[in-house]
Amino acid sequence: MEIFTHEYFMNEALKQAKFAFEEGEIPVGAVIVSKNKVIARAFNQTEKLTDVTAHAEILAITAAANFLGAKYLTDCRLYVTLEPCPMCAGALYWSQIGEIYFAASDPKRGFHQCNPEMLHPKTKVFSGLMAKESEQLMLDFFKKLRE
Amino acid sequence: MEIFTHEYFMNEALKQAKFAFEEGEIPVGAVIVSKNKVIARAFNQTEKLTDVTAHAEILAITAAANFLGAKYLTDCRLYVTLEPCPMCAGALYWSQIGEIYFAASDPKRGFHQCNPEMLHPKTKVFSGLMAKESEQLMLDFFKKLRE
Repeated sequence: MEIFTHEYFMNEALKQAKFAFEEGEIPVGAVIVSKNKVIARAFNQTEKLTDVTAHAEILAITAAANFLGAKYLTDCRLYVTLEPCPMCAGALYWSQIGEIYFAASDPKRGFHQCNPEMLHPKTKVFSGLMAKESEQLMLDFFKKLRE
Repeated sequence: MEIFTHEYFMNEALKQAKFAFEEGEIPVGAVIVSKNKVIARAFNQTEKLTDVTAHAEILAITAAANFLGAKYLTDCRLYVTLEPCPMCAGALYWSQIGEIYFAASDPKRGFHQCNPEMLHPKTKVFSGLMAKESEQLMLDFFKKLRE
């Protein structure tokens, strides 16, 4: 019996996004789940680490592989609050991750704009779960930034 | 007067690729140059670090930003022995790097296959410099792997 729902895990990703928000980072959060257990949590840290590669997904992939002691995440699910960018989609390709759930779409810098086929053919993608909460967090962030 | 040539820097990248070869990693090497000085050197370490994101370019971008204390590499040049994959091209996009020189093309997993326009519009790309040396190293690696 599955106790935890997709909403539960996406909410965990949203909590990470809120940590990013508090740190003045663009609020994107991610968790990676294996056997219904969160094995990696990360939020965007590009400002703090002064590193454009420090997106939530990249940090989560590295942490999950470290936890598993294995490069490939075939039996894992990623929950992320924003559609991955091409860099992160490219990393997810290499990881051969099983499933991706992203909340809000990113019509400007999401991977669909670059090439909708760039993920691994084995990876299943689901979008829109808790999209409104993620979008609101993003709107609040950029509103605060302009003030 | 410019003392160091593009060949000099690509040869430095090739040296990095040879380190990867010796470590049993797919032999790709990269250096990042600022004001005609190498500020970052890296080679592919996906096996050693058990991390699909540990491509030479990603490690070099992180190291260069760390050296400069700045996220953007607008005044830098990347020399890399193989055409960047979509993950690395996506990272290079975010870095806004000034120029990219890659040696061998990667018709299977190079970013041109994904989307030739995925780099930053300000980034200039040059290919083919010392391509034969890089290709030979790759051929030697896969030949050794099969033996």
